Amino acid sequence: MAGFHIGFVIFPGLTQLDFTGPLQVLSHLPGGVVHIAAKTLEPVPSVCGLALVPNRTFADCPELDLICVPGGGKGVIQAIEDGAAVEFVRRQAVRAKYVTSVCTGAFILGAAGLLRGRRATTHWAVTEQLGTVGATFERARVVQDGNIITAGGVTSGIDFALRVVAEIAGEDSARAIQLGMEYDPAPPFDCGHPDRAPAGLLASVMANRYHALRDMFRSGLTRVAAA
Amino acid sequence: MAGFHIGFVIFPGLTQLDFTGPLQVLSHLPGGVVHIAAKTLEPVPSVCGLALVPNRTFADCPELDLICVPGGGKGVIQAIEDGAAVEFVRRQAVRAKYVTSVCTGAFILGAAGLLRGRRATTHWAVTEQLGTVGATFERARVVQDGNIITAGGVTSGIDFALRVVAEIAGEDSARAIQLGMEYDPAPPFDCGHPDRAPAGLLASVMANRYHALRDMFRSGLTRVAAA
Repeated sequence: MAGFHIGFVIFPGLTQLDFTGPLQVLSHLPGGVVHIAAKTLEPVPSVCGLALVPNRTFADCPELDLICVPGGGKGVIQAIEDGAAVEFVRRQAVRAKYVTSVCTGAFILGAAGLLRGRRATTHWAVTEQLGTVGATFERARVVQDGNIITAGGVTSGIDFALRVVAEIAGEDSARAIQLGMEYDPAPPFDCGHPDRAPAGLLASVMANRYHALRDMFRSGLTRVAAA
Repeated sequence: MAGFHIGFVIFPGLTQLDFTGPLQVLSHLPGGVVHIAAKTLEPVPSVCGLALVPNRTFADCPELDLICVPGGGKGVIQAIEDGAAVEFVRRQAVRAKYVTSVCTGAFILGAAGLLRGRRATTHWAVTEQLGTVGATFERARVVQDGNIITAGGVTSGIDFALRVVAEIAGEDSARAIQLGMEYDPAPPFDCGHPDRAPAGLLASVMANRYHALRDMFRSGLTRVAAA
């Protein structure tokens, strides 16, 4: 089949921007053909309430050149426990040129056994858990180790996808897409990473949200590993 | 009804990241309630192939505190010709605290008569067309004029939404969301705006895509104005 086949793996409880950011970039890859694969063709609910419609099931998705797995909170642990997305990724990874993840999607690659002995990254809140799936955390927004590319939290998927386009189709293709998306970021604050966030803010964000996420990943991944 | 009601307006042929970027941010607004409104409850196809599921029709959407209209290419012109989204925005704008757009969504606000005499922005390729709807182009990634806030192309919606959160819920809320999304952008190239793109690249991007878009907006908006 002609074209460069890109497959996004979606599952209930994903963080939609982990997927929609790279999708916007990669849908402009010259010669690219995008597949949005899920367990069934039913709309897939994301954390923020938006449901996304897949166009392929895991069973009927063609062979992929690039697999991209977005993250989520509880949704990732549930997807790992469910097994269908993990099995799809494991099967497709055998022939794919690139196997990639954004945010906590790394743990789905990990559950498929694809991160053992690899350098990788994930959302800043759960980097310590990468060891559970045999990976070594590398401190970078996008980490490439062989044909495995992992990106940090949520918005890092946009930077990741532009790098992927540059690698596959050349820098000018990536630049053209960046210009088209007016990707000239101007965050109103400089606190997009724990390194630069005020200590009080980080503590409060951890307390409100990420201590629980970290605990959920710690226990969820241990439970899966033991099963 | 309690809460701060945020309504996204979606229509066939929208650019999904114009919507999904701000959605990811605004879905974390403290006290926020998100509505995704369309003409019917059927999945709405975006330009890049992903269909998005609304959860409100224009007819049954409650009164909104904030309206956000994403852009698109031909989809925006078709939405203006169709009229349903424009009428919805016009009606909701009467009482909304904020009326906002991302990218070419500005022209839907414009078609609703909401940009007359206002400073505004849109995607860099069609800023000249803002005059057609009575607006004055202001050179900025996010432009606020009274209760009207317009953002530039596609990814500017993320910066826009963080600014909106800061305005509504305070800077620390916005900072917490930015940290959670790991919004610490690191574009691989510095060409996200025509000011910084190499001249040859800009010419090629214009020739491949944006001359046609500009023509489409010019003739589409003239046609609508004449009708």
